[in-house]
Amino acid sequence: MGRLTRRHPVLRLTAEEERRRIDVLAVEEPLELRINGEPFVVTMRTPGDDLDLVHGLLHAEGLITGVADVSTARYCGGAGEDGENPYNQLDVALAAGVAPPAAEQRRQVLTSSACGLCGATSIDQVLRDGRFELTDELRIDRAVIAAAPDRLREQQRTFDKTGGLHGAGLMDAAGDLVCVREDVGRHNAVDKVIGWALRQDRLPARDLALVVSGRASFELTQKAVLAGIALLIAVSAPSSLAVELAERSGLTLAGFVRGGSMNVYTHPDRILAARSSVTR
Amino acid sequence: MGRLTRRHPVLRLTAEEERRRIDVLAVEEPLELRINGEPFVVTMRTPGDDLDLVHGLLHAEGLITGVADVSTARYCGGAGEDGENPYNQLDVALAAGVAPPAAEQRRQVLTSSACGLCGATSIDQVLRDGRFELTDELRIDRAVIAAAPDRLREQQRTFDKTGGLHGAGLMDAAGDLVCVREDVGRHNAVDKVIGWALRQDRLPARDLALVVSGRASFELTQKAVLAGIALLIAVSAPSSLAVELAERSGLTLAGFVRGGSMNVYTHPDRILAARSSVTR
Repeated sequence: MGRLTRRHPVLRLTAEEERRRIDVLAVEEPLELRINGEPFVVTMRTPGDDLDLVHGLLHAEGLITGVADVSTARYCGGAGEDGENPYNQLDVALAAGVAPPAAEQRRQVLTSSACGLCGATSIDQVLRDGRFELTDELRIDRAVIAAAPDRLREQQRTFDKTGGLHGAGLMDAAGDLVCVREDVGRHNAVDKVIGWALRQDRLPARDLALVVSGRASFELTQKAVLAGIALLIAVSAPSSLAVELAERSGLTLAGFVRGGSMNVYTHPDRILAARSSVTR
Repeated sequence: MGRLTRRHPVLRLTAEEERRRIDVLAVEEPLELRINGEPFVVTMRTPGDDLDLVHGLLHAEGLITGVADVSTARYCGGAGEDGENPYNQLDVALAAGVAPPAAEQRRQVLTSSACGLCGATSIDQVLRDGRFELTDELRIDRAVIAAAPDRLREQQRTFDKTGGLHGAGLMDAAGDLVCVREDVGRHNAVDKVIGWALRQDRLPARDLALVVSGRASFELTQKAVLAGIALLIAVSAPSSLAVELAERSGLTLAGFVRGGSMNVYTHPDRILAARSSVTR
């Protein structure tokens, strides 16, 4: 079964019958990320692609800007209760000259990237922290965007078994998904694909769109903006703050992309065969 | 419109047409929670029921055990950029003798409640921290459980408008939802209903089930266990660690509760007209 899924006996109750069967669960396990030997954060995640995850996480936190900022990243040794290494602890040594997180940042990490008293302040910070201008390099046909969620779903192998994983993918203008990752946490799935891009030295990912299987929150939108991604495609609804951030950063945000339709909340000009402007 | 939703122009693209319309978004705004004047955590949430939210959050973090542990909870003064108080900063003064969070806890809060190297260790900690034994006081008919998601959905007024909010509810054995809350964050929605119960002095909530509109993660299961709730009803899939925690803590976990059917992962004995035991 691997570490992505686990089997568990279940009592299946329907109107007609009651029977026992074996269900397949998505695995959720803590990952402790240490930086230069010091505990930084513990996140619940689905094991697998942990190196992508930590690179994406460190990028979203503004601690690294490229793969060269990481000297080594390795699982810590040590055995769990059963005598085996659970591979749930990863130590990242930053390259010489890369500043480790400040104590204040350790406290804030992942609790929320928000800072300050209102949403506008949170957006200001993202715009200030972002290293990449969002460009118009990527232009995608409307039909390609409409098909993106189905393509993502096709490649979510674990979801098919468990129904319990969020998916994220990076898609090019032709509609090909160059990277797909799954996780019980949707922020983790996004960190994994952006971490993959960073490790491939593909940031800013101006030629790629980010596709997510669920809703578009402020946090996910922020991760796209910070990676230089100019198009976010979400199967479900965006939040108000996600839309405001998209508006101000110049990101094209398409939500409710399902059944061949979509709502374009901001900057529709990157979508070919969609001539109107929302904001006009 | 109030603060729960916000209107935004949107370009609606379907196979047949392309038109502009107004969409209703679920509001997401940061809330800074301060304890005794010191910053504790910032969380992204949907405004509304903030007092329930912070009580539930402080309870889940083990900082308070009842409403008497909070001396005062009030929004900080001060104006945002537009000169109005955004009501995004709340200060909680703990009652005399209630210990404020340690520095280490400030860092960990909400990043994950996980601690240690593996899932088993995380579960050990919940079992150690829990003040309430889960009892068999609550027994619910299978049909009531099957109907719970629809009942929750009926009361999710903002979801109907936005499609963008998670819901959580507390349900009694008759199927009546005594408290329903919505939020862009599912952990917030659960904190809000458990915070409500705490403020009503209804913890441990042994007579109530927790109903959630999405998946059952470790974190949500943990919040139920810590509140003395013995039955968790989820519309979607549970994670492996949620099931393990349910198994070991004695919680009844029903997932994929939809269309009249459900999967019972652990301790089915609280479900009436479901005689078999999963683990037998």
